[in-house]
Amino acid sequence: MNREDALKAVQSKLTNQRYTHTIGVMETAIKLAKQYGADEKKAELAAIFHDVAKCMPIGELRDIMINEQLAPELLAYNKELWHASVGAFLTEKEFGIEDKEILQAITYHTSGHEKMTLLDKVIYVADYIEPNRSFPGVEEARKLAEEDLDQALLNALKNTITFLIQKEQTVYPLTVKTYNTIVKKQHA
Amino acid sequence: MNREDALKAVQSKLTNQRYTHTIGVMETAIKLAKQYGADEKKAELAAIFHDVAKCMPIGELRDIMINEQLAPELLAYNKELWHASVGAFLTEKEFGIEDKEILQAITYHTSGHEKMTLLDKVIYVADYIEPNRSFPGVEEARKLAEEDLDQALLNALKNTITFLIQKEQTVYPLTVKTYNTIVKKQHA
Repeated sequence: MNREDALKAVQSKLTNQRYTHTIGVMETAIKLAKQYGADEKKAELAAIFHDVAKCMPIGELRDIMINEQLAPELLAYNKELWHASVGAFLTEKEFGIEDKEILQAITYHTSGHEKMTLLDKVIYVADYIEPNRSFPGVEEARKLAEEDLDQALLNALKNTITFLIQKEQTVYPLTVKTYNTIVKKQHA
Repeated sequence: MNREDALKAVQSKLTNQRYTHTIGVMETAIKLAKQYGADEKKAELAAIFHDVAKCMPIGELRDIMINEQLAPELLAYNKELWHASVGAFLTEKEFGIEDKEILQAITYHTSGHEKMTLLDKVIYVADYIEPNRSFPGVEEARKLAEEDLDQALLNALKNTITFLIQKEQTVYPLTVKTYNTIVKKQHA
């Protein structure tokens, strides 16, 4: 699917603000893919579709997750995570994108997972630092992404877990496993 | 076993500083047990023995964990956690304390677990706030323990996880599960 068709496909599903974010993730993901040697075309498509389910009502997300048996363990955790699995499902079923690497990058763009590929990391980090993001530490996060993708990923995971704990929200175990995997690698 | 015998038993295994800490945990645990209705005698003994393995060389801890097949998954995580399982093992095998509630409170005094009993919580919190502890936030932690044991436990877990992440150390998954369990209960 070319960029224009893909953007047109997701635009109707997103608010203007979410669509602007999507464009930002796309541009950042392509830049990171170039820099770190990931497939630019896959990065572009994964970025365009990563939030395709983000603006759906929670009840619909829940129904799809239950009916399609997508990551049932996710239902006990933060609703913010649900759109990732449903997004990958819709990207394949509704838009015909069958590339497993693209679908995996969409599935894990909010939680991470223990064996993240280069493409998974590019999408995760691009989503965290795209130009429309604004939070304390975003400049440092952008700087890290220019220097070292794994450090940028670790930084994003650390911030995410710390933020959830400050807010007394549940932390999805897979996110902690992802964090532990990177920490162990760095100290191996 | 009476208090004097128990204290004498652990004193020879601990540095002076660790023994002073143990006395602090014992006094705090008895106080919390009184306040919240836990068994004071069990709280006393669990507190006295909770760090019995804390001053052992890491190699010895590892050997016992491997030979006795104690929590093998712990070996992949922070060494600071190991003394708890080994301590419970020694408390039973070397000192003949067979009470399962006491042994469980010792086993989980650093990690927590998903179904913590009142006694488990008393020991966990007493260890965190005993009078010799000194860290930013300890006064707030003590105040919480006087008001609400579950809030004190949640606060200790939050601080522990946040501290580990700031230091880029691995976080034991059971600790996060314990945190998630309490958060879910509070928002249920």
